[in-house]
Amino acid sequence: MSLRAALGEVGAGIDRGFDALLPVPPDPRARLYEAMRYAAIGGGKRLRPMLVIATCDLFKVDRERALRAALAVECIHVYSLIHDDLPSMDDDDLRRGKPTLHRAFEESTAVLAGDSLHALAFEILADEATHEDPFVRAELIAELARASGPAGMAGGQMMDLMAGEIELDLAAVTRLQQLKTGALIGWCLEAGAIMGRVPPEGRTGLRGYARDLGLAFQIADDLIDHEGAEEKAGKRVGKDQAAGKQTFVSLLGPERARRQADILVAQAIEHLQPFGDEAELLRAVARFAAERDH
Amino acid sequence: MSLRAALGEVGAGIDRGFDALLPVPPDPRARLYEAMRYAAIGGGKRLRPMLVIATCDLFKVDRERALRAALAVECIHVYSLIHDDLPSMDDDDLRRGKPTLHRAFEESTAVLAGDSLHALAFEILADEATHEDPFVRAELIAELARASGPAGMAGGQMMDLMAGEIELDLAAVTRLQQLKTGALIGWCLEAGAIMGRVPPEGRTGLRGYARDLGLAFQIADDLIDHEGAEEKAGKRVGKDQAAGKQTFVSLLGPERARRQADILVAQAIEHLQPFGDEAELLRAVARFAAERDH
Repeated sequence: MSLRAALGEVGAGIDRGFDALLPVPPDPRARLYEAMRYAAIGGGKRLRPMLVIATCDLFKVDRERALRAALAVECIHVYSLIHDDLPSMDDDDLRRGKPTLHRAFEESTAVLAGDSLHALAFEILADEATHEDPFVRAELIAELARASGPAGMAGGQMMDLMAGEIELDLAAVTRLQQLKTGALIGWCLEAGAIMGRVPPEGRTGLRGYARDLGLAFQIADDLIDHEGAEEKAGKRVGKDQAAGKQTFVSLLGPERARRQADILVAQAIEHLQPFGDEAELLRAVARFAAERDH
Repeated sequence: MSLRAALGEVGAGIDRGFDALLPVPPDPRARLYEAMRYAAIGGGKRLRPMLVIATCDLFKVDRERALRAALAVECIHVYSLIHDDLPSMDDDDLRRGKPTLHRAFEESTAVLAGDSLHALAFEILADEATHEDPFVRAELIAELARASGPAGMAGGQMMDLMAGEIELDLAAVTRLQQLKTGALIGWCLEAGAIMGRVPPEGRTGLRGYARDLGLAFQIADDLIDHEGAEEKAGKRVGKDQAAGKQTFVSLLGPERARRQADILVAQAIEHLQPFGDEAELLRAVARFAAERDH
């Protein structure tokens, strides 16, 4: 199956999943659920869900279960986009090609919709429909909480907020991005391994792949911000430079950054060697992550 | 032990727990951890932790484990206060007798500190130090996610935001408060029962207590907002009336509201009858919840 077809299938599964999880209640909470649906359904590349499902496929994890783990990480991703777009944070008006949630609804509703998706991620994982073994559920939850909290994504976003004030070097930008986007991408692979009962010592290759992919993905993001088109990106571009933030592109220049992304993709693919042909989809994701223009 | 002494002991345990969980890292995330510590350490009545620990004591749950569950619910409570105080929400300047987090730090840091405490709650519960049985951990997490998400606390806050626009009757205000504050209070009792291995059919009394206590607690809150003193409350008062919101006090008048709180406290205590003298602390909490002036 081509990556495009696989992404389409995963996207449709995620949309169906959110639709089922978020029926609009007939009371004043309706607006909250409508906001969650606006942000969660029908947009984005669904790259994190794709990574969860492709890794689960490597280990023959049941597709329905894999999809629940994929929904959980997308809940966290979408909540982080909602909060990062807030006026007090990055103050963005456009996301996934439509007005950001606080523009389409109110800022207060956006804060609450983010919080609600955050809680929903853990509610999904704690449910036995995700896995019958509570050890597996608890491990998925422990890892997701770490990857998304102050030692992971939220900590990376804090570093990003400081990046306009502090002069960051390449090591610091790398660390920032490993927390801000890398930790959650790492969870996607880890989740597949946890559900597939791969012991920690068997996860080294997947972790290497995730680390290299995460950085390649971020360099591509910086390149889109540097030279991309707003219509294609579906979000405001040129904002890092405007904010005076150091990025891979500002530190390396666009050509070296592009070359570095290519090296990282080759490395990521190298890590998948033990998995043979079964890992073709993960290889395709790595190539896409660096080459994409949106 | 008197309630005052018990609250003091629990408060000290919570402060120690947060101090150990939140060491300030030597990198740009320091500000985030400082913000989390500012909001979480050294303030509040610690009523929810007290409820967890008093319920755990009923069932002889190990104190260190009880304290971890208590820390988790306090993480959720503190995150909700941080986000509810934001300019786009209730826009409050004073909380627990000091400037709200977004006043003491920046609004962006406040959003992230709330998100980080939210994730930390689930990280604490998923760790095997909280309970060796992963079934217990998964049940604690599933219930906390439900109690704090759109079907619980966040949904109640959404109803509260709409309350200035929609005319709510007594049934609607009761429902709003059962979600906004009742669900999390209910979790505290449920957590003790889960960790104490009480089967669901044995939890009816505890659930009845939590329901009545939650409403009595909220009526007392409305009375403090109506007639309390800002210095004692440690937060702005008179804000419901200013916002044109219906509350128990606006709908019943202060005298009937006070009487209703007393009835609820008596009912809450009645639910504890099967537990005999062992439940004395929970009885004291119920009396305190309604009589407090802060």
